[in-house]
Amino acid sequence: MHFEFDQTTQEYLTRVQDFLDAEIYPAEAELDRQLAEDPQRWERQPVLRQLQESARSRGLWNLFLTGDGGAGLTNLQYAPLAELSGRSPKLAPAAMNCNAPDSGNMELLRDFGTAEQKEKWLKPLLDGRIRSTFCMTEPEVASSDATNVTTSIERDGNEYVINGRKWWSSGAMSAEAKIFILMGKTDPQAERHRQQSMILIPRETPGVKIERALSVFGYDDRDHGGHAEISFTNVRVPAANIIKGEGEGFAIAQARLGPGRIHHCMRVLGMAERTLEIMTKRAREREAFGHPLAKQGVVRQWVAESRITIESLRLLVLKTAWLMDRYGNKKAHTEIQAIKIAVPREIQVVVDRGIQLLGGAGLSQDTPLAELYAQVRGLRLADGPDEVHLSSLGRAQLRPA
Amino acid sequence: MHFEFDQTTQEYLTRVQDFLDAEIYPAEAELDRQLAEDPQRWERQPVLRQLQESARSRGLWNLFLTGDGGAGLTNLQYAPLAELSGRSPKLAPAAMNCNAPDSGNMELLRDFGTAEQKEKWLKPLLDGRIRSTFCMTEPEVASSDATNVTTSIERDGNEYVINGRKWWSSGAMSAEAKIFILMGKTDPQAERHRQQSMILIPRETPGVKIERALSVFGYDDRDHGGHAEISFTNVRVPAANIIKGEGEGFAIAQARLGPGRIHHCMRVLGMAERTLEIMTKRAREREAFGHPLAKQGVVRQWVAESRITIESLRLLVLKTAWLMDRYGNKKAHTEIQAIKIAVPREIQVVVDRGIQLLGGAGLSQDTPLAELYAQVRGLRLADGPDEVHLSSLGRAQLRPA
Amino acid sequence: MHFEFDQTTQEYLTRVQDFLDAEIYPAEAELDRQLAEDPQRWERQPVLRQLQESARSRGLWNLFLTGDGGAGLTNLQYAPLAELSGRSPKLAPAAMNCNAPDSGNMELLRDFGTAEQKEKWLKPLLDGRIRSTFCMTEPEVASSDATNVTTSIERDGNEYVINGRKWWSSGAMSAEAKIFILMGKTDPQAERHRQQSMILIPRETPGVKIERALSVFGYDDRDHGGHAEISFTNVRVPAANIIKGEGEGFAIAQARLGPGRIHHCMRVLGMAERTLEIMTKRAREREAFGHPLAKQGVVRQWVAESRITIESLRLLVLKTAWLMDRYGNKKAHTEIQAIKIAVPREIQVVVDRGIQLLGGAGLSQDTPLAELYAQVRGLRLADGPDEVHLSSLGRAQLRPA
Amino acid sequence: MHFEFDQTTQEYLTRVQDFLDAEIYPAEAELDRQLAEDPQRWERQPVLRQLQESARSRGLWNLFLTGDGGAGLTNLQYAPLAELSGRSPKLAPAAMNCNAPDSGNMELLRDFGTAEQKEKWLKPLLDGRIRSTFCMTEPEVASSDATNVTTSIERDGNEYVINGRKWWSSGAMSAEAKIFILMGKTDPQAERHRQQSMILIPRETPGVKIERALSVFGYDDRDHGGHAEISFTNVRVPAANIIKGEGEGFAIAQARLGPGRIHHCMRVLGMAERTLEIMTKRAREREAFGHPLAKQGVVRQWVAESRITIESLRLLVLKTAWLMDRYGNKKAHTEIQAIKIAVPREIQVVVDRGIQLLGGAGLSQDTPLAELYAQVRGLRLADGPDEVHLSSLGRAQLRPA
Repeated sequence: MHFEFDQTTQEYLTRVQDFLDAEIYPAEAELDRQLAEDPQRWERQPVLRQLQESARSRGLWNLFLTGDGGAGLTNLQYAPLAELSGRSPKLAPAAMNCNAPDSGNMELLRDFGTAEQKEKWLKPLLDGRIRSTFCMTEPEVASSDATNVTTSIERDGNEYVINGRKWWSSGAMSAEAKIFILMGKTDPQAERHRQQSMILIPRETPGVKIERALSVFGYDDRDHGGHAEISFTNVRVPAANIIKGEGEGFAIAQARLGPGRIHHCMRVLGMAERTLEIMTKRAREREAFGHPLAKQGVVRQWVAESRITIESLRLLVLKTAWLMDRYGNKKAHTEIQAIKIAVPREIQVVVDRGIQLLGGAGLSQDTPLAELYAQVRGLRLADGPDEVHLSSLGRAQLRPA
Repeated sequence: MHFEFDQTTQEYLTRVQDFLDAEIYPAEAELDRQLAEDPQRWERQPVLRQLQESARSRGLWNLFLTGDGGAGLTNLQYAPLAELSGRSPKLAPAAMNCNAPDSGNMELLRDFGTAEQKEKWLKPLLDGRIRSTFCMTEPEVASSDATNVTTSIERDGNEYVINGRKWWSSGAMSAEAKIFILMGKTDPQAERHRQQSMILIPRETPGVKIERALSVFGYDDRDHGGHAEISFTNVRVPAANIIKGEGEGFAIAQARLGPGRIHHCMRVLGMAERTLEIMTKRAREREAFGHPLAKQGVVRQWVAESRITIESLRLLVLKTAWLMDRYGNKKAHTEIQAIKIAVPREIQVVVDRGIQLLGGAGLSQDTPLAELYAQVRGLRLADGPDEVHLSSLGRAQLRPA
Repeated sequence: MHFEFDQTTQEYLTRVQDFLDAEIYPAEAELDRQLAEDPQRWERQPVLRQLQESARSRGLWNLFLTGDGGAGLTNLQYAPLAELSGRSPKLAPAAMNCNAPDSGNMELLRDFGTAEQKEKWLKPLLDGRIRSTFCMTEPEVASSDATNVTTSIERDGNEYVINGRKWWSSGAMSAEAKIFILMGKTDPQAERHRQQSMILIPRETPGVKIERALSVFGYDDRDHGGHAEISFTNVRVPAANIIKGEGEGFAIAQARLGPGRIHHCMRVLGMAERTLEIMTKRAREREAFGHPLAKQGVVRQWVAESRITIESLRLLVLKTAWLMDRYGNKKAHTEIQAIKIAVPREIQVVVDRGIQLLGGAGLSQDTPLAELYAQVRGLRLADGPDEVHLSSLGRAQLRPA
Repeated sequence: MHFEFDQTTQEYLTRVQDFLDAEIYPAEAELDRQLAEDPQRWERQPVLRQLQESARSRGLWNLFLTGDGGAGLTNLQYAPLAELSGRSPKLAPAAMNCNAPDSGNMELLRDFGTAEQKEKWLKPLLDGRIRSTFCMTEPEVASSDATNVTTSIERDGNEYVINGRKWWSSGAMSAEAKIFILMGKTDPQAERHRQQSMILIPRETPGVKIERALSVFGYDDRDHGGHAEISFTNVRVPAANIIKGEGEGFAIAQARLGPGRIHHCMRVLGMAERTLEIMTKRAREREAFGHPLAKQGVVRQWVAESRITIESLRLLVLKTAWLMDRYGNKKAHTEIQAIKIAVPREIQVVVDRGIQLLGGAGLSQDTPLAELYAQVRGLRLADGPDEVHLSSLGRAQLRPA
């Protein structure tokens, strides 16, 4: 057991940090300006496209993709880079083509796609030419229970016909999201976890309708294409668009989740570090009742508690990444659930402390804190609420050894 | 000691409940529609103006104003009505002309204004013809410490000259906010709590500039005129615009806070009840893993805990109102601080549970929960952060008897 | 609605306070001395017997007993007296013959006993000549589920035969506990809540065996007769010893709980006030890092938070008492559950803060804090764990109106 | 970075686990029996002396001592063994001669003692022939602030004269504790952290008086020699008994703390694992309301939360051990503080859940839970309360980089 990053990781850490310092942080204000300019525009802003060019030329592209086709990093090597990118969550992950849901979709296509599917969709995604969305959650049912899925995928000759309604399809408000990966039921009579399949639906297919944008707290998340509600009415796609095969949907979904949770959790830790930076800076500069805030007991406690939380959870995420690399996702199941539950929930508290310290500036657009809060809070629901995972983790622990 | 509302209160409760059921709730969707129609408009929407007419004709107008000039209710009688209005916080308080910051400003003018000031500003406010704002907090200093105020009010002949910058001036984005009550320093050398004064500044005075709107989480709060940052540059007003006299600012501010905290806290409890209604409805209707959510242990706990929190805090607020009625604000100091700290903080947890139960719908515009959360969260900072009040309350408790 | 105690209550408060100041507090050290003298003795110590004489002569005897036979106080009138007695929980309740489980047992006999049962057992209990125990909980089953009771009560001619094992029979280590009220099953086939009955078993009946004493966090609670495990082997009592009738056990148990919870909760609030006194005294006297502890932010927060908790929960208990007086126990069901859950749990936190502030003295025999903690903690399990009540309260709230 | 124990550690883990299974667990009931037999005896019970013989013959002796003189393990290698020993905290650490305060005292003598001091005191301690105590905390002052120490150590010719009063001298009730390491002031005028010195005082020196035993909650901790209050009145020892030199006391104390915190924290994690075992066993076996407790949502949550807490904190402790091995105690300062704060506090919650699940059995002597609770709770005060460490950690984080 030891706790130092290997040399490859350390080199990448330096390079990503350089990129943040030289280009990302300075671009944050410009992004806000461009977003404000045209409140109807959901596509990538020019500043992001420039940063993507730069990241590519710096060799900081598709780092998330372990194994073939990416930068060749392991989950453990990529994890601290994901954390760094979380310090500027609107720009850094997307600049390096490592942002959700595209990263998960690329992994999925890499692992389960046919050669043709890869050629048609994975390649332009890896290239950053298009974007994608993942259509899983439905408005009318508790979607954390996969058997609740109501969207149907029915075989009709050489085609599949899709009917249903999805929401929280992130990125889909942007016209750049050219391909939708949809989870639906091909066989409602099959065994519980064999009813579901995944299928590829090009955005422009007739019957696909972007109904509206959803907000998270008051944010539209236009920087990454928002969150859409989408209806699918007699949408027809070629039978070849099925991913891996009928009945494989649940298994694919499970496989997709492991690395995604590492990414999400590490980015959230980056958000926490950014929050701490903002807090400590403010606490040193602002005075109340005759002393800088940094001298007040409660502020010291907040900062200390936040540091403890971040340090212990980071180790848990890193160990999870290591377990996945070494023994595969299945053996890391307990840990993957643990971080999915603990990281957003505990960091929500850290960011809430940040808001409290900053006061009005924390609530407003003058700091990233309120928006970070909204993102972190949302993650306690994405991929299923904490409680579903707690229950499942507890059940597993209670099983006789 | 007994725990039943008197007959007057019970009658008003029925009438306000009728108003909610018959007019307010049905108007909520229309308000959202009107707000969406013109995203640049900060003034009262037509639907609100109609509800104001209706409230007035129902005799549900200015209920908040104890003593002369209002409905003649005590704080204890008004408190449960404020709670009811909190169930629809964007419409009900404003419909009944009981919304912050106007209600506090009216009390202030009633208690400390000259006859002329009352005639000119209080009357149209009581009438709902104009609105007002309160300019206290400053962006550059920790404003919970009143000695930090940097805005200057300098006497110059028959005028005062105001220079400074304020933010979180709620309601001020609306052109209807015709009068600003500003806190500034007339004598920075005076004793700690005699440096500050309050002065009336008409909106249209030269040198007053509305700089920008602030958001709370992602919300602009256009329904009640938003929150403005305002600069004051060599703003000149007649000397008669000073309120009560030079050096009275701190004392006036303290006096203003008592009833306002009752109002805020009771409305927050109304928000909590609304949240619980939404939670219980959803829990009965939605199924996961073969059962309605209402059968899950954790959901039952959430609902039970929320009920306990609401019941105990409501009693504390009501007792505070009773103390104020009976012994005056000073004797209720401990309790006023206690509710200011406890109610928003504990109800923040209740609303967070609501969001967690509702999932994506809780985060989005499909339920009022996320916006309620933002409002409740903001109250932990308005009028000073929890920590300042905790410290003050603790210090008082630690004093030898 | 108003929040002042009536005159009767205020007079009693003065008298009980005088008793505490003049006799109870000064006797605390003597009790400890007498307890230390003979570690095998479970009976009332001489100092307590003297205080009982004094309380009786002061007219502070059996105050808990509402209606006939007691002091004629309502639950609301008695509640603040119970709180006062909780400030010295080892002496004050017992001195006034208001201590559990005797008080609940007396209520039970008063409400459900036959004339003969009252003559034989209630009278000497009211007189303080004997003590009693309540045999409900069983070691081998989750006793919060009344259907789990395994102790059998079988009719055999003019007698009942009891077989089973009970524990946490408080007071039973003392030979003064002459009468046991036992819950058992007369008809395991009956409807869920009609299987149980209660029966009176004199201590000296053959087959009754006191097996051992149980400790609560290392404390034996000898001051009030400890907690016994008791076996019942073919114990025969006259048929006339059944209370109210076969199948009435569950209903009697429910009826017994209401007032007992008021008593427990108010005493716990008294323990909290005692804790706060100890905390504030220490915080003013002790210095660390150049300042008295009272100047440290975290200490102020602890004291402030404790004050808020106590004030809000006290109101909830008082309202519950009022509801019981006015509308009966059934209408107060939600509130009775709420206080049973919230008061011990929240006051556990208050006492834990006290221990943390006092440091080593808080952990040890030098302050009452650690022992108070053990008592409060135990109440989260007595009469069923928090979770059973939370679930039940939540279920009721989730029912359609 | 990787997360697997090295081979040496894994071998020792197997051997310690074997020792636990074969000898320690079976001996727990015997220890309780022997302790009950003579409630006045504070010395090691026969069962422990036998286990010490066995541990020695198994090569499981003084494993804690890194570097020379011990088993040659690093902190990181020893840490998981300390965790295992925490599963049976009354027997396993002492059986392996790894128990506090002896382990810390041995490290101290090894690192700072003269050859003579080592010969006289370290050797018999390493041999398990004698025991020792550490006299730091004083009853009259907040001892977390080292400048508060009032015990004086005055040079008088070839001797030092000690006057003062100490408490929480663990182990000192046992006559086997032959040597006391005392912290006192040699120069109250010196610079803040140079006033203190440490000195060796043999138990039998005239003027040393064991005043009384202190309890922790209701426990006397006789299994490891209790906690004593000791007065020192004109106690004279040779000048050679000073450790390292005058003014070195504070520095020695700091140096002593690092490894001790690793040991304490890892043992606490072992207690947490023991608690979880007890919880899961009970949850599978006991039924309430028609289902095993293991099927209840809240029980699953408790177990899941406990698992998450343990996993993340264990990694933090292990990283701390690694940092100490690799970079020395100073570089691990933040982490040492972090684990000192977080581990006992979070595991207190785990054990509290255990008690709640077990009910009456959890409170009583029938499970180790209540006693584990008392031990873990005490650690939040030993070596200074959480709040002192939080404040210090926060201050360091708030310093400009």
